[in-house]
Amino acid sequence: MRAVVLNCSLKSGTDRSNTQMLAAGVIDALGNRGVECETFRLSDLDIRPGVESDMGEGDEWPQVHEALLGAEIVVFATPTWVGRPSSIAQRAIERMDAMISETDDDERPVAYNKVAGVVVTGNEDGAHHVISEITGALGDIGFTVPGQAWTYWNRGPGPGPEFADTDEGHEWSAKTGRAMAQNLVGVAEALQAKPLGPPPD
Amino acid sequence: MRAVVLNCSLKSGTDRSNTQMLAAGVIDALGNRGVECETFRLSDLDIRPGVESDMGEGDEWPQVHEALLGAEIVVFATPTWVGRPSSIAQRAIERMDAMISETDDDERPVAYNKVAGVVVTGNEDGAHHVISEITGALGDIGFTVPGQAWTYWNRGPGPGPEFADTDEGHEWSAKTGRAMAQNLVGVAEALQAKPLGPPPD
Amino acid sequence: MRAVVLNCSLKSGTDRSNTQMLAAGVIDALGNRGVECETFRLSDLDIRPGVESDMGEGDEWPQVHEALLGAEIVVFATPTWVGRPSSIAQRAIERMDAMISETDDDERPVAYNKVAGVVVTGNEDGAHHVISEITGALGDIGFTVPGQAWTYWNRGPGPGPEFADTDEGHEWSAKTGRAMAQNLVGVAEALQAKPLGPPPD
Amino acid sequence: MRAVVLNCSLKSGTDRSNTQMLAAGVIDALGNRGVECETFRLSDLDIRPGVESDMGEGDEWPQVHEALLGAEIVVFATPTWVGRPSSIAQRAIERMDAMISETDDDERPVAYNKVAGVVVTGNEDGAHHVISEITGALGDIGFTVPGQAWTYWNRGPGPGPEFADTDEGHEWSAKTGRAMAQNLVGVAEALQAKPLGPPPD
Repeated sequence: MRAVVLNCSLKSGTDRSNTQMLAAGVIDALGNRGVECETFRLSDLDIRPGVESDMGEGDEWPQVHEALLGAEIVVFATPTWVGRPSSIAQRAIERMDAMISETDDDERPVAYNKVAGVVVTGNEDGAHHVISEITGALGDIGFTVPGQAWTYWNRGPGPGPEFADTDEGHEWSAKTGRAMAQNLVGVAEALQAKPLGPPPD
Repeated sequence: MRAVVLNCSLKSGTDRSNTQMLAAGVIDALGNRGVECETFRLSDLDIRPGVESDMGEGDEWPQVHEALLGAEIVVFATPTWVGRPSSIAQRAIERMDAMISETDDDERPVAYNKVAGVVVTGNEDGAHHVISEITGALGDIGFTVPGQAWTYWNRGPGPGPEFADTDEGHEWSAKTGRAMAQNLVGVAEALQAKPLGPPPD
Repeated sequence: MRAVVLNCSLKSGTDRSNTQMLAAGVIDALGNRGVECETFRLSDLDIRPGVESDMGEGDEWPQVHEALLGAEIVVFATPTWVGRPSSIAQRAIERMDAMISETDDDERPVAYNKVAGVVVTGNEDGAHHVISEITGALGDIGFTVPGQAWTYWNRGPGPGPEFADTDEGHEWSAKTGRAMAQNLVGVAEALQAKPLGPPPD
Repeated sequence: MRAVVLNCSLKSGTDRSNTQMLAAGVIDALGNRGVECETFRLSDLDIRPGVESDMGEGDEWPQVHEALLGAEIVVFATPTWVGRPSSIAQRAIERMDAMISETDDDERPVAYNKVAGVVVTGNEDGAHHVISEITGALGDIGFTVPGQAWTYWNRGPGPGPEFADTDEGHEWSAKTGRAMAQNLVGVAEALQAKPLGPPPD
C-alpha cells in the first residue's frame, strides 16, 4: 500500500518545517503498518495555477498527479495561516479538481477507493477548520475520509511558540497521529477488499 | 443495514419541508439497496441544549441516540440559513459530541465503522460549506465519510425560488443523491466486512 | 450608546458559564467607554426555530429583537462546540435573518450603522472559525464589523482545562477584549456621526 | 479616496476573467463616488510564498503592499474553486499577515481605518463561504468590513455556465455591487472623519 504526503508548508528547501516534523510521526506510523510513503514538499516545485492536471511547459504538478494516481492514501500536511489552509494546500486542491472528471477503466472517478487525512500545525488556533476545509474539498473530488483521520498541534490563545520550540502537547498530537494512521490504512484496506463501483445513472 | 436520517428543517409538524423532499430521493435510493431508513424530523422533538447523550427529564434526544447506535449509516438533511447549517443540525452535532467518548465492547468509539452523508437545500448558495461543516464535525466524532456522499439543491445568485417551487436542477440533485446512496452503502459494507479496530495507544 | 450581549452558552440558569466570564471583561471595557450593556443569556429564553422576528405565542425572541433594534453594538459571546458556533448562536443568527428585509424610515436595512463583535471560548481550538462564521453572517444582515473586534480563549491541542480552571492566557484574552471594545465603540461613533444611507437602486 | 482591487483569478495575461467582469461593475460604482481604483491581476505577478511584506529578490508583492498602504479601500475579487477562495487569494492574505504587526506613526496597525469588501464568481455554489473566509481573515488583520460589502454571482446546483456565458442573475449581482460600493465608501469616509486610535494596553 502506498501513501502520498503533501507537505504544504510555505517554507522551501532546507528551512525547518514544523509541519514536516509533525507529519513525520504519521509517516512512521504508516510505515509500521507496511505503507510506503512518498513525501512532496510542494514549495520546492513549480506548481502552476489552474485546474488541469497538466498546465504545460515547466509545470511540476504532473509528477505529483502521477503519484496520487498510484497511491491508496493521501495525507495533506499544512500549516495554518490567518486561520486557514496554506495557499499551497489550496493550490494542490485546485489541481486535484481535475480528478473529478478523470475516470478509471471502470468509469469510476480516480479518487474513488482512495482515502485521505490531514495533519495541521499552527502556533495558535484553526486546526479543526483547516481539517474541515481540506476534507470537505477532497470528499467533493471523491476521496473517502475515515473517522478521526487527522492530527494537529497548536497552542492558543494568541501568539505563542512554534511546534519545534516546545514539547507541550506533542504526546497528544503523536498519539492522535497514530490513530490517524490506523484509520487511513484500515479504511483503505476495506475499500481494497470491497471497492466502490462507478456512480449509478 | 439501517440508516438514520436527521431532518434538520426549522419547520415542524406538517409544514412542507423542502429538505424532506430532496432527502426523499436519497431515502428511496437507500431503500433500493436494501437499507431500512428511519427519519427523525428533529424540530418535532424537544432536544435539550447540552453535550451529553441524555440531558434528563423531558429530553427527547435519547431515542435518536439509540437509533444512531443501531444504524450503520447516518444522513444529515439540512436547510441552509445565512449560509450555514441550521441550528437544529448544530444541536444534533452537539448532542453527538458525547459519542466521542462512548465506546463499544472492543473499546472503539461508537461511531467507528459507521458512515455519514449530507443532503442540503437552500434557495441561494452555501451547500458545499454546509457539507464541509457537518462532515468535518462527524469525522471528529469518528464517522467515516465516503467520497461524494452528498447531494444538494439551490439556485443563486440572490433570493429565488424554493426547491418545491421549480423543477430546475432537480434532475442533477436526484442523480447526485443516487451516487450518494451507493457510496454510503458501499463504504458501510466494506467496513462491515473489514472493521476498524480500537485506536492504538 | 447601547450594546446587546448575546450569551450563547448551552448552559442555563445559574450554571457557571466560561463564555460569560470572558465576556465580562469586554462588558467592563464597554462600560468604561460609556456604553450601557444589556446581556441576554439566550439559553434561559424560549427562542423558537424560524426566520421571522416573531414566531408567535410563547416565543421569547421579540424582546431580544427589540433590544437589538435599540442598540448600536451587538456582541455575540459563544462557546465552541465540535469546532463551530453553538446551536444557540446559530438560532440567534436565523432569527436575525428577518432583519435583512426590515428597514428604517429612510429605507435602510435596520442593521446598517450598527456594529458587531464576537467573544469565543472553548477548551481546545476553533475560535477564528467561529468568529468568521458569525461575522460573515452578520455582514450579510448588514452589520459593520470593525477591525479586530473579537477576543477568544482556548488551549490546544486536544482536550484541556476550561477557561475558569486556569489563568493561562487570560491576560492576552483580556487585552484583546479591551481592543475589541475600543474598536466597536470607535466605529459605532464614526457611523453615528456619518451614517450610511439606503442602498442605491 | 483610493481603492486597491486584487483580482485573484487563476487565469493570467489576457485570458478572459469572469472575476474581472463582475468586479468591473464595482469599480465603476466606486469611480462614480470619486474613488480612484488600482487593479492588480495577481496571477501576472510573481508573489512568493511567505508571511513577510518583502520576501526578497524577484518578489513582486512589495508593489501591492505599497498600494495597500496608500489606499483606504481594498476589494478582494476571487473565483470559487472546490468551494473555497482561490490559492491566489489565500497567498495575498498570507502576505498581508505581516500587516498585523506593521504600525503607523500613532502605533496603530496599518489596516486600522481601512475597509474591505469581496467580489466572488463561480459556476455553482460557495460565495457566502468565500466571503466569510476572506472577511474573517481581513478582520483579523485590522480591516473594518462594512455591512453588505460584497457581491457575487454563481448558478447552482451542479456544473453550469460561467458568468460570461449567460445574462441570468447579472442584474442582481450588479445592483448588489452598487450597494457594496456605497457601503465601502461610506464607512471609509466615516473612519476618515473619526478614525480609530491605537489599541489600548
